[in-house]
Amino acid sequence: MKFKILSELTYEVYAPTTYIFNIQASNSNNQTILEESLSFSPELNFQEFTLPYSDSRYIKLQINYGTFTISYKALVEVKQQHLNEQTLLVEIPLFEMDNEVMTYISPSRHCESDKLIEFSTKEFGHLSDNLTKVKAIDSWIFNNVNYLTRSTNSSESACDTLISRQGVCKDFAHLGIALCRALDIPARYFTGYAVNLLPPDIHACFEAYIGGQWLLFDPTHLSDTNKLVKIAHGKDASEACVVTFYGSSCCTNMKIECDIAE
Amino acid sequence: MKFKILSELTYEVYAPTTYIFNIQASNSNNQTILEESLSFSPELNFQEFTLPYSDSRYIKLQINYGTFTISYKALVEVKQQHLNEQTLLVEIPLFEMDNEVMTYISPSRHCESDKLIEFSTKEFGHLSDNLTKVKAIDSWIFNNVNYLTRSTNSSESACDTLISRQGVCKDFAHLGIALCRALDIPARYFTGYAVNLLPPDIHACFEAYIGGQWLLFDPTHLSDTNKLVKIAHGKDASEACVVTFYGSSCCTNMKIECDIAE
Amino acid sequence: MKFKILSELTYEVYAPTTYIFNIQASNSNNQTILEESLSFSPELNFQEFTLPYSDSRYIKLQINYGTFTISYKALVEVKQQHLNEQTLLVEIPLFEMDNEVMTYISPSRHCESDKLIEFSTKEFGHLSDNLTKVKAIDSWIFNNVNYLTRSTNSSESACDTLISRQGVCKDFAHLGIALCRALDIPARYFTGYAVNLLPPDIHACFEAYIGGQWLLFDPTHLSDTNKLVKIAHGKDASEACVVTFYGSSCCTNMKIECDIAE
Amino acid sequence: MKFKILSELTYEVYAPTTYIFNIQASNSNNQTILEESLSFSPELNFQEFTLPYSDSRYIKLQINYGTFTISYKALVEVKQQHLNEQTLLVEIPLFEMDNEVMTYISPSRHCESDKLIEFSTKEFGHLSDNLTKVKAIDSWIFNNVNYLTRSTNSSESACDTLISRQGVCKDFAHLGIALCRALDIPARYFTGYAVNLLPPDIHACFEAYIGGQWLLFDPTHLSDTNKLVKIAHGKDASEACVVTFYGSSCCTNMKIECDIAE
Repeated sequence: MKFKILSELTYEVYAPTTYIFNIQASNSNNQTILEESLSFSPELNFQEFTLPYSDSRYIKLQINYGTFTISYKALVEVKQQHLNEQTLLVEIPLFEMDNEVMTYISPSRHCESDKLIEFSTKEFGHLSDNLTKVKAIDSWIFNNVNYLTRSTNSSESACDTLISRQGVCKDFAHLGIALCRALDIPARYFTGYAVNLLPPDIHACFEAYIGGQWLLFDPTHLSDTNKLVKIAHGKDASEACVVTFYGSSCCTNMKIECDIAE
Repeated sequence: MKFKILSELTYEVYAPTTYIFNIQASNSNNQTILEESLSFSPELNFQEFTLPYSDSRYIKLQINYGTFTISYKALVEVKQQHLNEQTLLVEIPLFEMDNEVMTYISPSRHCESDKLIEFSTKEFGHLSDNLTKVKAIDSWIFNNVNYLTRSTNSSESACDTLISRQGVCKDFAHLGIALCRALDIPARYFTGYAVNLLPPDIHACFEAYIGGQWLLFDPTHLSDTNKLVKIAHGKDASEACVVTFYGSSCCTNMKIECDIAE
Repeated sequence: MKFKILSELTYEVYAPTTYIFNIQASNSNNQTILEESLSFSPELNFQEFTLPYSDSRYIKLQINYGTFTISYKALVEVKQQHLNEQTLLVEIPLFEMDNEVMTYISPSRHCESDKLIEFSTKEFGHLSDNLTKVKAIDSWIFNNVNYLTRSTNSSESACDTLISRQGVCKDFAHLGIALCRALDIPARYFTGYAVNLLPPDIHACFEAYIGGQWLLFDPTHLSDTNKLVKIAHGKDASEACVVTFYGSSCCTNMKIECDIAE
Repeated sequence: MKFKILSELTYEVYAPTTYIFNIQASNSNNQTILEESLSFSPELNFQEFTLPYSDSRYIKLQINYGTFTISYKALVEVKQQHLNEQTLLVEIPLFEMDNEVMTYISPSRHCESDKLIEFSTKEFGHLSDNLTKVKAIDSWIFNNVNYLTRSTNSSESACDTLISRQGVCKDFAHLGIALCRALDIPARYFTGYAVNLLPPDIHACFEAYIGGQWLLFDPTHLSDTNKLVKIAHGKDASEACVVTFYGSSCCTNMKIECDIAE
């Protein structure tokens, strides 16, 4: 399926600021960039870079003052994963699991899985297989946490959400990741463009490693996980920020679009 | 019903220390002290005092060094509350509620009810009446929290227990109190002697104000709430400690007994 | 010294709501109400009540819908405490301390003094006497915490403020109280009207029990502690709220004045 | 300088358990393994692996039941860093910083630097350069946190330590890392063998990125940072565990030695 995406972000800059943007669609086996353009208004110098273990692409720039807009457009083809339920039910012993994948079992800044072992085991540990467990985690979050715009700030973590029972997409994803890892199921944070997301924004979901594959879950149930264009993954939002900046700046306008292309 | 209770606590004192003990059965409408004795070995000077809004009795003493044992024995008659389900279903509007009772709706050190409004409302708010709600809270805690000796320290609070899903009787009580208050149901911490408690110790439960009466709940389900001798109540453990001391001391021996007297 | 105070609060009521207001000047030994008036617009029925151990006065009312304004005006004479440094340096042993005063050594919802013993002892424990210690606590907070309007919400506690290093007057007071209690110095939350406070609001400070007297400290250094009219004290904000409501309502306007009267 | 190191760890295994050990000296530019041996008693199959961006070496094995001992011995030559103060004072702008290094500015599980920006800026932000700042952080931790064996568990983080003011080497390191990152100075967790460490154990310190180099700091001041043999680095203890296991097991004996070889 092909998707047309657009991202337009405007920043005011109050003091010399270094930005790292991570808004480009990732270029991976499942996803092909058919066309894309990146532009700045006014024109600016920037660097592009990637990091290992990742198909993510980063843009780094430094601005001293003023206002600028970064615009990204792309036409992306995403291959649907043809998942075989039989394959998904094959449990990969930790001993045979890829070592890089295992790094996604460790707790992280926003996913304190080490504190949730008792909870996750009691609630989901009795279920028959990892696919069933993660589906149950996804449903549990959807049913027990209220999606509430602007309800949280960037320092919230999975334990906070489990107490407050409210959050936005990043909080839903962090809780999902933490509950998976608490059961020794590798899980990672996912950012991407979602078709028909309301309000329009870059979306956060999570991927769990089941039967040797990374499967996508959206516990907000706001997107169709077959209609997402991937930007990046990471241990949690601290490793997959849409934008990180060091300095003094403010986002004054944001326009995000994602549509199915004929 | 009559109960024979015994409490024997031995302390080593390393530096001048002030103790406040709250181990005597309270002397209230529901509970009559038939016989009692209090003794110290070696003999010591002490003060007794009470505080308003409370039938609790406190013993204050100061020891400079050495070892001492406080022994308390009593024969106590406890009147069973004859509860009329109809009376319990009468909801007292907050506006008509006794002002002193309303102080037990506020959050306290170990019961951060203000953080649990969303959770408690979602989980129990739909139930028909306060009696049903508190019974559901009691069952929920029993089914979702593991009783685990020595699993927690004195700084834990209801939110910690909701995350860790383990604790001892005080933690079960604190969580029960916090979930009630989050629904605007007054609730308070209860300490007392329980028949057949294993391991023998002074027990902690909670009381909820339902239909104009304080009803006792033990979410550990370790005691029969009809077979408890009350010592004290308070907002939480910070207001109803069995012993508080200021100085340097250690409890080296404890013997607690509570039996039904013929 | 005489003070003219005014408090005018307007609320919109969306559903039947019970309010408890605690905005009247307290009527105590140190403070005499010379004139006062309380009115509601539109006219409303209300109850007045007090609680033991307190000179505070409460107003309770229930509103079903609409908008109302509560207006309180008073002329209050406050006797300045003539403090004798010699008296303040007399340490009252805990054993001889009034039992009601000792309740203000326990931790409370927003003042987790039990977690701050190490910190407070290390930072202030070496100082010669309680007066010097509390003065040092007051200065430390003033120098290490940023006063930042709207920086916190009502669930913050002393430990949160010690981490974030920012807050409003209630947070400064809570931290002061917690650090005192961690040194076994009784301390309590104080609300009142302050001359020339900017922005005008009801102010929060704290009182510490030193040499047998409650002394007032304002670690924000925004008010002159000799120019405060007391409303109430309590263990922390959970026990001395200016207004508590149960239902659905919003404060849409607030006017607070406190001036020295000729 | 040459070091002889020995690590001998014995585990009881109660159920099939997967272990990942990270106890071998790293093989990097600064450090050369002159001799080494790794053995298991009884003999066991194991895998060795490495991860990118890292000179660390990992051993993975699976045991079903019983008892085993892993023994590692090595003779390692560590080149002393010849640090030029002038070089260290050169500030590398974030824009020019290596992208992999920048990942160590993000907060992590045990280092919530995002919550400590106000604190770290107020306490250290005014200092002239990054070297001076990190030295001040190191001293501050040494002077304000008590080293207390067994005072913490594995879930503690930098904010917990800042409140409790006590911890072990991992807690000191986490706090150091968090305070550096809060100032946008990259910092990472370091594990290694330390000469004359008492009690003998694998040690945790932290590295800060200053003037284009990773500099080692030990805020416990228990080791000589010139006499450390590196095992690994990571964002925090969640990424540089000496041993991680999945299953049911207990370490029953540990022998660690690190001596200067002639």
